[in-house]
Amino acid sequence: MSKLLLATRNAGKLAELQRLLATAVPGVEVLGLRDVPEYPEAPETGATFEENALLKAREAVRYTGLPAVADDSGLAVDALNGMPGILSARWSGRHGDDPANTALLLGQLADVPDERRGAAFVCAAALVTPDGGGHVLERRWRGTVVREPRGSNGFGYDPVFVPTGLTVTSAELEPAEKDAISHRGQAFAALLPVIGEVLGGR
Amino acid sequence: MSKLLLATRNAGKLAELQRLLATAVPGVEVLGLRDVPEYPEAPETGATFEENALLKAREAVRYTGLPAVADDSGLAVDALNGMPGILSARWSGRHGDDPANTALLLGQLADVPDERRGAAFVCAAALVTPDGGGHVLERRWRGTVVREPRGSNGFGYDPVFVPTGLTVTSAELEPAEKDAISHRGQAFAALLPVIGEVLGGR
Repeated sequence: MSKLLLATRNAGKLAELQRLLATAVPGVEVLGLRDVPEYPEAPETGATFEENALLKAREAVRYTGLPAVADDSGLAVDALNGMPGILSARWSGRHGDDPANTALLLGQLADVPDERRGAAFVCAAALVTPDGGGHVLERRWRGTVVREPRGSNGFGYDPVFVPTGLTVTSAELEPAEKDAISHRGQAFAALLPVIGEVLGGR
Repeated sequence: MSKLLLATRNAGKLAELQRLLATAVPGVEVLGLRDVPEYPEAPETGATFEENALLKAREAVRYTGLPAVADDSGLAVDALNGMPGILSARWSGRHGDDPANTALLLGQLADVPDERRGAAFVCAAALVTPDGGGHVLERRWRGTVVREPRGSNGFGYDPVFVPTGLTVTSAELEPAEKDAISHRGQAFAALLPVIGEVLGGR
């Protein structure tokens, strides 16, 4: 059975890709970083989402010898020239503090009028194979940043992001609804045929 | 004697422009907002430094009937796509909290390597006359963002900004040294001939 490593410790992301792959590429076992003993914490030093996704996937291949998928995601806010961007998870200076990051973003946008509160969730998804081959692509999910958090699903900036065409925040969507239209759902869906081609040929 | 209003409550900026104008346009009395009773606090709603400088100057003319000069300034960091930019003074969510703003910026740039820490101090300076005429220009002062604050002169991000060609931060420069080369010094110097022309013709 082919093995594929998803270079994440995030159980939600792992379950999502396992579900997607089970349908698209039957017979592939998807492992997460929690299955790899003593996997080192790598700094994200790239300047773009795509660079970071490729860096994470290459690091995982080097450490395990398995083909690896990685993503890098974030919120690009128009009024902040595309930031927090690749710094989304550490915008407040502390990595992964979602409430602090969200509160800071809302504070920075306090005087920004409704018509200039556009934003996009961005996801770059990368596949790297043990022979050194790399594939990366990026997908965007447009919306606006509201002024008060709403909803308890998802993570990160989901409670303050209302996707274009909807009135609820992405934290008010059910996980499967979100997967079907989100930046990460779109990016993984677009990467699936590439994964199938690479793993199917093994 | 001609009167000119500098639309700021900042005593340092007022003294600087008074000094510059005394030489360039003798016989002009420069007032600050502290000289105008009950001047209202106006929100900075522009999307650029130039828009904000013009907004501030127009507001001052409307309220006082005097020709008015205003500036809007901030730090544009390359690795943050030009932010904090117009949000420099309220980057941490609280207006004018220099230590919090600087600490946040350093935290956001913690993993950004030295070769990508370029930045520019930007100043837009505007002159608006009671007949509705407006002039605005922008000047930039390039440098890099260091990892630890140094120096106690200046304000804002001065302690973490090392101008190109120097080894000290702009908070380690004497005020007169800084005025001679800074973004604000350059912008006011460039606006002086315009001010002289407008006020000289009155």
